[in-house]
Amino acid sequence: MKQTESSKTIGIGLLGLGTVGTGVVKILKSQGRAIEKKTGIRLALRRVCVKSLSKKRGVALDRRLLTTDPSDLIRDPSIDILVELIGGIHPAKEIIHRAFLNGKHVVTANKALLAEEGGSIFREAARLGRKLGIEASVCGGIPIIQSIREGLASNSISQFLGIVNGTCNFILSAMSQGNLEFREALRAAERSGYAEKNPRLDIEGVDSAHKLAILARLAFRTEVPLKAIFVEGISKLSKVDIQYASELGYVIKLLAIAKRHGRAVELRVHPTMLPLDHVLAGVRGVYNAVFLHADQAGDLLFYGKGAGEMPTASAVVSDIIDIAKRATGQADLKVRKSSPPDALPVRPMDEVVSNYYLRFQVEDKPGVLGRIAQTLGKNHISILSVHQKESHDSRSVPVIILTYEASEKNLRRALRAIDSKGGVRQKTVVLRVEK
Amino acid sequence: MKQTESSKTIGIGLLGLGTVGTGVVKILKSQGRAIEKKTGIRLALRRVCVKSLSKKRGVALDRRLLTTDPSDLIRDPSIDILVELIGGIHPAKEIIHRAFLNGKHVVTANKALLAEEGGSIFREAARLGRKLGIEASVCGGIPIIQSIREGLASNSISQFLGIVNGTCNFILSAMSQGNLEFREALRAAERSGYAEKNPRLDIEGVDSAHKLAILARLAFRTEVPLKAIFVEGISKLSKVDIQYASELGYVIKLLAIAKRHGRAVELRVHPTMLPLDHVLAGVRGVYNAVFLHADQAGDLLFYGKGAGEMPTASAVVSDIIDIAKRATGQADLKVRKSSPPDALPVRPMDEVVSNYYLRFQVEDKPGVLGRIAQTLGKNHISILSVHQKESHDSRSVPVIILTYEASEKNLRRALRAIDSKGGVRQKTVVLRVEK
Repeated sequence: MKQTESSKTIGIGLLGLGTVGTGVVKILKSQGRAIEKKTGIRLALRRVCVKSLSKKRGVALDRRLLTTDPSDLIRDPSIDILVELIGGIHPAKEIIHRAFLNGKHVVTANKALLAEEGGSIFREAARLGRKLGIEASVCGGIPIIQSIREGLASNSISQFLGIVNGTCNFILSAMSQGNLEFREALRAAERSGYAEKNPRLDIEGVDSAHKLAILARLAFRTEVPLKAIFVEGISKLSKVDIQYASELGYVIKLLAIAKRHGRAVELRVHPTMLPLDHVLAGVRGVYNAVFLHADQAGDLLFYGKGAGEMPTASAVVSDIIDIAKRATGQADLKVRKSSPPDALPVRPMDEVVSNYYLRFQVEDKPGVLGRIAQTLGKNHISILSVHQKESHDSRSVPVIILTYEASEKNLRRALRAIDSKGGVRQKTVVLRVEK
Repeated sequence: MKQTESSKTIGIGLLGLGTVGTGVVKILKSQGRAIEKKTGIRLALRRVCVKSLSKKRGVALDRRLLTTDPSDLIRDPSIDILVELIGGIHPAKEIIHRAFLNGKHVVTANKALLAEEGGSIFREAARLGRKLGIEASVCGGIPIIQSIREGLASNSISQFLGIVNGTCNFILSAMSQGNLEFREALRAAERSGYAEKNPRLDIEGVDSAHKLAILARLAFRTEVPLKAIFVEGISKLSKVDIQYASELGYVIKLLAIAKRHGRAVELRVHPTMLPLDHVLAGVRGVYNAVFLHADQAGDLLFYGKGAGEMPTASAVVSDIIDIAKRATGQADLKVRKSSPPDALPVRPMDEVVSNYYLRFQVEDKPGVLGRIAQTLGKNHISILSVHQKESHDSRSVPVIILTYEASEKNLRRALRAIDSKGGVRQKTVVLRVEK
């Protein structure tokens, strides 16, 4: 078969022209020729669906491409790939569904949709022989989805730890480096444009849980019920714990943690103490990173910008190119049939085992520490080290205990007993430790 | 078109059954079913070409698969993909050529061949519509090739810094952490199995130059004449410079450096001082990492095991799967036509600009330092800082000078003048500094 010398043209329909959509248009404009030279594929922007036709845009665009009706994209036979960048569950889900039915492949950055409805969307894409590109949904410009799906295709991934929310990492870096309380660091993030007006989804860990669900689905090939993920945000962290952690040689990061134990998986998002020489400890500011263990390839780290106009748009366009390459071949999309993912049970948080950092605020009286140690022991929790700190008020003394591995169930039982007795002045602070 | 429910079978011919080849067989055995489940592709090992039929192997293998004649693989119509793991230029090049002509795709880990003959091999693959998988040739288990080729397809890469030789990084880490001289650290690497019997290609930077050539070809889409790469190894490094660097807040790594300046490129391999908070500074032991800057995605780091049986075999098998996926589609391999790479000129080392660390061993006499500073100034080299160290012998005193950016040409001229005059006791030590 002779190669054709001319480029193939692939039609793009863009749904949403916010930050990322604008970035996509910029890349198509500035890199279009370079992409054609590299791949032999011409990417042609056919239609752009927006909320308002009159709004001023951050990029020059032929106004005749604009429409407010998604159906104009879905029904356009010259569009091969629909790029969904409107976010939210509805109507994004229905539009993607109709695009699939109309023979279009889809690229989306919609992590909430993928986390909540990923199972049915992937099944539908497979049933209809459509491609679904999701690189932009997790860690912006880092090609982590492709690396898990393809680069590590011959590997079983046994666990990964991810710093997947730039807002939280910025806040924690600011608390640590600037000795700030959470509220002050959040304000700094807002001033720098790294926190949204309503930052709840970020700081309470929900966004990280969405990304964990998407990554775990791919890494473990399992359905991930979002509700089964244990989620704890960073809004209750005190700078005093960050400081004590630092004195003990640790840094605190909001981690998305996934571990596979045979046929079960462990999925959790919470502030986590990491030793200072851990490869994730140096990931500062708005950077994201995923550290994973693959059985053949070993330990791997992927690090880069997790959000922002151009990094996320870069991921969208790499998905477009990937699908365009396959779409110009056609058959690759249709011949093969992979099995659907399993539904591995998620281990209940009670059964999760971890090392812990515990900060007790105790009365400076004889016997209190002994009672705490005794209660921990009764609950099968062994003490690794004890650190009594200088008191910041006259009423109580902070005591830090690092434990060996213990189950959440035993830990909670022990803390209920300790916190309800006399001698302890406030609810004990718990941080989980990874090595 | 209806999907076929049955798996496609792809035939593999394995040329070479050394460390990596054995790892490939292990993965095909242990992960074959999982790969089939994920991808719908059955990978069938058809023939294995070895030097000796009687040698004991590290993996159980049907002896009927073995042959000593590469032609048995090249002519076998049931083989779709030839995996070349014999290394060296000849006969690897000729075998790959014949495999292409016989309709086979090729996966290779042969970095020397790709660095020296990559241009003609890639051209031939493109001309004949064959795929060439090279993931295993650089950084073992890290999917860096795929990330550059596909994940960053919409980006221009402006520069990258790579720790791409595990032996050198192990030696430098040992020198730094164990306060060892080069020879002692090399022996430690040999004892740990991290240095080959003849480690010259590693320690003199040649292996890093091979990998730099392969990465630069992909990242910049240019032909890279291997001889145009400036190469300096680590065998002349003294622990005293590692110690002084550490006191100044730097660590020394052997870096493969590639920078693009418009239509020219800069390519060099040498020991490099990096600030301790640089993202590459924490890459220790046999780990590899590539830090790159992409115009859209921003700064990215890829980190993992750069060598070893299973990481490298993992990369080989991920290439096999990638090609198999496309091969079951067929058309994708043939329809598109990308342009050949450019031949960007390599900037001569004389014109390269860098910051420098200079260690002068001077007589402890008035006026010497002044003469050095004057000569540097005359050659347009500005001094950033001066550090006089305690003397280790009675005859000379080490003086460290960190410079602002200067050209290699000016630096060499200045050092020729300084080293040839009185007052300087030995050839001045030069280390380049990256930020």
